[in-house]
Amino acid sequence: MPVERVLPSQEGHDLIELTREIAAKEVAPRAAAEESAGRFPREVFRTLGASGLLGLPYPEEYGGAAQPQEVYLQVVEELAAAWLAVGLGVSVHTLSCFPVASYGDAAQRERLLPAMLGGELLGAYCLSEPQSGSDAAALTTRAVRDSEGFVVNGVKAWTTHGGVADFYTVMARTSDDGARGISCLHVPAGTAGLSFGAPERKMGMRASPTAQVRLDDVRLPAEALVGAEGEGFKIAMAALDGGRLGIAACAVGVAQAAYDAAVAYARERRQFGSRIADFQGVGFMLADMATTISAARALYLDAARLRDAGRPYGTRAAMAKLFATDACMRVTTDAVQIFGGYGYVEDFPVERYMREAKVLQIVEGTNQIQRLVISRALARD
Amino acid sequence: MPVERVLPSQEGHDLIELTREIAAKEVAPRAAAEESAGRFPREVFRTLGASGLLGLPYPEEYGGAAQPQEVYLQVVEELAAAWLAVGLGVSVHTLSCFPVASYGDAAQRERLLPAMLGGELLGAYCLSEPQSGSDAAALTTRAVRDSEGFVVNGVKAWTTHGGVADFYTVMARTSDDGARGISCLHVPAGTAGLSFGAPERKMGMRASPTAQVRLDDVRLPAEALVGAEGEGFKIAMAALDGGRLGIAACAVGVAQAAYDAAVAYARERRQFGSRIADFQGVGFMLADMATTISAARALYLDAARLRDAGRPYGTRAAMAKLFATDACMRVTTDAVQIFGGYGYVEDFPVERYMREAKVLQIVEGTNQIQRLVISRALARD
Amino acid sequence: MPVERVLPSQEGHDLIELTREIAAKEVAPRAAAEESAGRFPREVFRTLGASGLLGLPYPEEYGGAAQPQEVYLQVVEELAAAWLAVGLGVSVHTLSCFPVASYGDAAQRERLLPAMLGGELLGAYCLSEPQSGSDAAALTTRAVRDSEGFVVNGVKAWTTHGGVADFYTVMARTSDDGARGISCLHVPAGTAGLSFGAPERKMGMRASPTAQVRLDDVRLPAEALVGAEGEGFKIAMAALDGGRLGIAACAVGVAQAAYDAAVAYARERRQFGSRIADFQGVGFMLADMATTISAARALYLDAARLRDAGRPYGTRAAMAKLFATDACMRVTTDAVQIFGGYGYVEDFPVERYMREAKVLQIVEGTNQIQRLVISRALARD
Amino acid sequence: MPVERVLPSQEGHDLIELTREIAAKEVAPRAAAEESAGRFPREVFRTLGASGLLGLPYPEEYGGAAQPQEVYLQVVEELAAAWLAVGLGVSVHTLSCFPVASYGDAAQRERLLPAMLGGELLGAYCLSEPQSGSDAAALTTRAVRDSEGFVVNGVKAWTTHGGVADFYTVMARTSDDGARGISCLHVPAGTAGLSFGAPERKMGMRASPTAQVRLDDVRLPAEALVGAEGEGFKIAMAALDGGRLGIAACAVGVAQAAYDAAVAYARERRQFGSRIADFQGVGFMLADMATTISAARALYLDAARLRDAGRPYGTRAAMAKLFATDACMRVTTDAVQIFGGYGYVEDFPVERYMREAKVLQIVEGTNQIQRLVISRALARD
Repeated sequence: MPVERVLPSQEGHDLIELTREIAAKEVAPRAAAEESAGRFPREVFRTLGASGLLGLPYPEEYGGAAQPQEVYLQVVEELAAAWLAVGLGVSVHTLSCFPVASYGDAAQRERLLPAMLGGELLGAYCLSEPQSGSDAAALTTRAVRDSEGFVVNGVKAWTTHGGVADFYTVMARTSDDGARGISCLHVPAGTAGLSFGAPERKMGMRASPTAQVRLDDVRLPAEALVGAEGEGFKIAMAALDGGRLGIAACAVGVAQAAYDAAVAYARERRQFGSRIADFQGVGFMLADMATTISAARALYLDAARLRDAGRPYGTRAAMAKLFATDACMRVTTDAVQIFGGYGYVEDFPVERYMREAKVLQIVEGTNQIQRLVISRALARD
Repeated sequence: MPVERVLPSQEGHDLIELTREIAAKEVAPRAAAEESAGRFPREVFRTLGASGLLGLPYPEEYGGAAQPQEVYLQVVEELAAAWLAVGLGVSVHTLSCFPVASYGDAAQRERLLPAMLGGELLGAYCLSEPQSGSDAAALTTRAVRDSEGFVVNGVKAWTTHGGVADFYTVMARTSDDGARGISCLHVPAGTAGLSFGAPERKMGMRASPTAQVRLDDVRLPAEALVGAEGEGFKIAMAALDGGRLGIAACAVGVAQAAYDAAVAYARERRQFGSRIADFQGVGFMLADMATTISAARALYLDAARLRDAGRPYGTRAAMAKLFATDACMRVTTDAVQIFGGYGYVEDFPVERYMREAKVLQIVEGTNQIQRLVISRALARD
Repeated sequence: MPVERVLPSQEGHDLIELTREIAAKEVAPRAAAEESAGRFPREVFRTLGASGLLGLPYPEEYGGAAQPQEVYLQVVEELAAAWLAVGLGVSVHTLSCFPVASYGDAAQRERLLPAMLGGELLGAYCLSEPQSGSDAAALTTRAVRDSEGFVVNGVKAWTTHGGVADFYTVMARTSDDGARGISCLHVPAGTAGLSFGAPERKMGMRASPTAQVRLDDVRLPAEALVGAEGEGFKIAMAALDGGRLGIAACAVGVAQAAYDAAVAYARERRQFGSRIADFQGVGFMLADMATTISAARALYLDAARLRDAGRPYGTRAAMAKLFATDACMRVTTDAVQIFGGYGYVEDFPVERYMREAKVLQIVEGTNQIQRLVISRALARD
Repeated sequence: MPVERVLPSQEGHDLIELTREIAAKEVAPRAAAEESAGRFPREVFRTLGASGLLGLPYPEEYGGAAQPQEVYLQVVEELAAAWLAVGLGVSVHTLSCFPVASYGDAAQRERLLPAMLGGELLGAYCLSEPQSGSDAAALTTRAVRDSEGFVVNGVKAWTTHGGVADFYTVMARTSDDGARGISCLHVPAGTAGLSFGAPERKMGMRASPTAQVRLDDVRLPAEALVGAEGEGFKIAMAALDGGRLGIAACAVGVAQAAYDAAVAYARERRQFGSRIADFQGVGFMLADMATTISAARALYLDAARLRDAGRPYGTRAAMAKLFATDACMRVTTDAVQIFGGYGYVEDFPVERYMREAKVLQIVEGTNQIQRLVISRALARD
């Protein structure tokens, strides 16, 4: 029973079908083993790139598919349902490409975007630092102008794809003028002075490395600057607005996967002479899970359509991220519950979904930060 | 700060504007006083009929506007935000017209629909009985065929517009064959043998009478039968699928009204030297309220678009009713909280919203029945 | 099925029995009608005073019963279950007596306490003002010392028993030194210059008048000062610590009454061929209600035992008030739900319980203020 | 800031102090490493036995301490806060001893209890089977009487301490008479025919092995029977009533540990120029966590005092298990949230607490079974 989706075009429909096929053949079957092993599936991203699924929301002239967010995000959702490391990886990659795609000059776009969207160059996004997480504007990584470009020093924290990415989109301080003193830099892997911490030992998402990114006298040419000097925080926030929709879509995907597993189990498992799905105690839980997932999907699509229509969508995206990830945490926790003891062991995927869900309440702005974003907007409107 | 809506057409946009204008001028200003007095605003429905807002989802040939549910429901939402007795009244009226519009023969449609959609004939819907609420198929009101038509005896409970409506859409038993023994009858007000209990003394929605409808040897002509004999339960359930979307829209309207009032108050009220909206303790509550309202609206619109696309939507409608009305109960309760003591008194409208919210969790299938509908679908799919 | 209580003494047990008897005979039977009529049951407090139930936690030498809080609060709970206006009235009265009992000098105690505890003098507590609710220390009512005592001017808001009390415990500003510039004054009803606003038109608790108390050049003798000058805020906060336990007990009482009604109904009402209590959809709701009520009771008793043991209990009391009143709001809302349409009408008491519950989340510190109290303690410990 | 406890005796107080000392020195420091390694800390149980902490609620004549549940459970709570594998291990061990202690004959008690309570014999409890979890009475493991005693065949599932215990308390079918055909057997480790599945690969609690217990023609002497033949289900249910209090205490311990870690972090971590504990968005979360933990503790102690007073406590114990474990799940999830990214990695213990919390909602009756137990009682009373 695949999710019943309303899509805006036949092309969108075909992309979902293609995604489901790849997800079922290339993604889902490997998730459990590689999460156990903590192995990053770099090759899956190449497959996605080759299939045209890595550049969906970007212009066709650079190898993108010019798809509306409404389609792109449902693709991310389907991938996340198969394996969060992949769905979230696509979302993070899309976020990492955003500055070049939206603020880069023509030369940067031509030079970088085709390989980014084709899957050869996988991206990472470096904003947080050990001492500045929620308060991103307090970052201290410093990029000093010299005659040849920039010299960058600092430590970035919690970087998804840290150590396995091909490029790093780095926010660094180019002046002391608070949020206005931050600039966006494109840093290719392999640049001298760039190194990485050991991957964090995480509760879930172990196949997707998260690591510190250290910059020690990293020298970059002037062309590494994306957008204007001092424009970095604005770029970072715009990127995050979109990134939050990606996280919302991932959360719906994981929740849907957990729910599907729970329904299947509840239809099979018999106790007291009946399928447990037929007890209201279980059936009503499943009904609430299905309802909250449907609401979460409808909400991120609503925000996506606002963005597709060119209207302000940042507050709605924060709502979608908040709602979908809180929903995902509850739904996955309840899915384990429906499995009982079987839910608590690795033989079934639901314990993995629950461990994965937690990170989604934290990344790209904790849900407390989303509430701050929303409450500031309403206090001001 | 009116709600930012994405509408499918300019016509839809104009209808929302028209609704807001009428709501602001003719509906909202009277709500508090008439709720206190318990006076039914019959004339408002005439105004709405005259403005073309009573037959939105029905065909133009009968005086309807042939609008998609996506538009119709947002009109209901706007009216409910101004005054629930009116928004819910429109939804119930639309529900009462549904059998004639969808299952009636050409003669019935021509005879009845224009006056129904124009506001001259206001409808009521009679399904529940004192002993059969959630278990609607157990109804015992009996319609016995005779040479001239039907003789109907029984008591209907909880009828919105009971005693003030111009016609009653009555589900009655024409055989003992359980759900298949029920038929749908059109009963005009004034028919001999039709009488009404005293209006129920309700916690809220006192301007909208709810009463028992008693049928004592009510004689109806054969043409009173809407749809085929024995088809009544199917008609009733199809009507309810649509009616639930109307309730969901009403719930979003009431929640939005409560939220708007709470935001306005939180921006004005100062304690400890600041606007209370600027304390995270209040701001985060408001953020959660805004988020759940947005999710509820997105969910009912999602179900509406499924219906508009001609796809099955009953389960999604049950989800929308469940989610939106539970959300409305929480949001209105929290809106009172944000007002503190001021929220608990009639000087501000939020205590009324909270009293109104509760009925929405109960009508057109309690939220327990919605969960049953959803869980049966998922156990079966 | 009366609540199974563990009481610390036979005397405590007897007091609970006495309370249940009075509650069943003199209190519960009148609640519905007098709440509808908005009539304050002054005589019930005389009965309680005559029965020794008005001074339970106070010393025997002044007519009290020297009972531990553990017993006193369960008496309040039983009264609130019968009629909140009475249970809360006892709690407010106890609060109003607290300054004299704990900070008054011997003369004040001898002069006032016997009549206070015997039911002749009913009390009211005046702290809030229209512009200072949560921020109580910002109060502006001013008491100016002169040769004969004090001249008091100002307006107090939200006073329970305002206009029907025999004395008013008033917090007023005697200097501009913030919280340290507040003093506690005993103001007998009938003092010249003392007047009252019309009773607030409240969502519930209409039998218990809540009104503004206006002080226009109210002249008080020097002996009106309770405790030292400038000690008023400390007294007010200590009184509130105890008052919050009273509110928690009231909340448990109302929740228990709503739950008892819901269980009784669910055992009687049949749908789909069974008692609705036997459907897990209803049974699990009732189980959750029973559990949260038991937890709320256990928590307020836990705080009470801390107080009885002479240990700091303010934070625990804030937790009890927060938890019990939020629980009461949920439980009463769900109790209405279990009754379905019958729950929404005045024929059954559950709609009243729900309207009453809401005020408990607001009084004696909104639940946001409780969270503030708790979070400040934990940030400091 | 150790938890402020009200204890019924100085001895109880001393036992808590002793427990805290052992927990701090011998238990907590090893938890993280051994959970990572999946190593069972058998020696800790010897230490506890030697310290007198393994037989607290049992009679002194067999080496127990004759402590009330009120003390025993708070000891379990303290141990669980240090390391759940130990706290839960003590609870399971106590449960496994219960049949011999309460239903065994004098010979069995004398032969077995001293070593059980002294820590030499660690117990396991075998009730669930792969096809009978919630429906425990449907178990199929069969014990056939022969001249020398019993021959037992079957498979037990989800056995805590499976493979490392010294004895197994096994419920087996001795007749086909449903729940009345079950008997309780004492099976020493090392009995021929007794074997174990590989330890389950669990989300948490990896140091505490959970395994299938297989009985293939296991021959037991007649004295292996504990209690009367056919009395096994009654014994099992009585044991579970007590076991549920143990789980509730464990849940409060884990929640408290997570909360303590979160408070400590929130006081240290600075963002936007302040400690995050000082933002209401975090402070109110912590306040809610502290409140729910306090309520959970109060509730299990309330049930414990009922038991200590010799009154029926099964329903209250089910409530305590339900409430405390649901609370623990929410609190640990929120504790991770307060740590942000740091919460999601093994460097801090909160992610472990969250993984541990989940199992508590499942063991010794899922929380759905608790609701069933409670709702049956209320439908019947």
